[in-house]
Amino acid sequence: MDLLVTYDVDTTTREGQRRLRRVAKICEAYGHRVQKSVFEVVCRDTDELRLIATLRATIDHERDSIRLYSLPSGALDEVEHLGVSREIDPRGPIVI
Amino acid sequence: MDLLVTYDVDTTTREGQRRLRRVAKICEAYGHRVQKSVFEVVCRDTDELRLIATLRATIDHERDSIRLYSLPSGALDEVEHLGVSREIDPRGPIVI
Repeated sequence: MDLLVTYDVDTTTREGQRRLRRVAKICEAYGHRVQKSVFEVVCRDTDELRLIATLRATIDHERDSIRLYSLPSGALDEVEHLGVSREIDPRGPIVI
Repeated sequence: MDLLVTYDVDTTTREGQRRLRRVAKICEAYGHRVQKSVFEVVCRDTDELRLIATLRATIDHERDSIRLYSLPSGALDEVEHLGVSREIDPRGPIVI
């Protein structure tokens, strides 16, 4: 299963900055960062459920926003990219 | 065709801040903003080509990054969302 995770975390408070770091760290354990707040994740359904549960328990539901898009298999290999690129293989090993 | 557009624009210079505003304005003409740097776009193939060409001509290719994900039809209606939501209909009218 290919997933795209995008987030906006409100960083106007120290607690928000902490949440931002936590959200990034959680996503880093599951996928590859392709932009500041965008991760590409290749995982099994059970991993997706765990990822969602962990993110849900981490964010402030009145200030932060996370969106998870389910992509058809292989979609991450066909992204149109403009500008500076992090050369990543969405199926490559995850470095934490 | 459903598209997801995500971007990182380097705003460490005034010129970068201008580019960020321009990129947002371009995307607003094609789709709905769902997060600070994420737009959902429902458009025809010709619109997609025009959008890509306009973005390509706008960004600094050594500092900025834009990614366009092609989604299967209807994928935008099945996004998993956590936290604060902009209640949007990806197929609704675009307000510029």
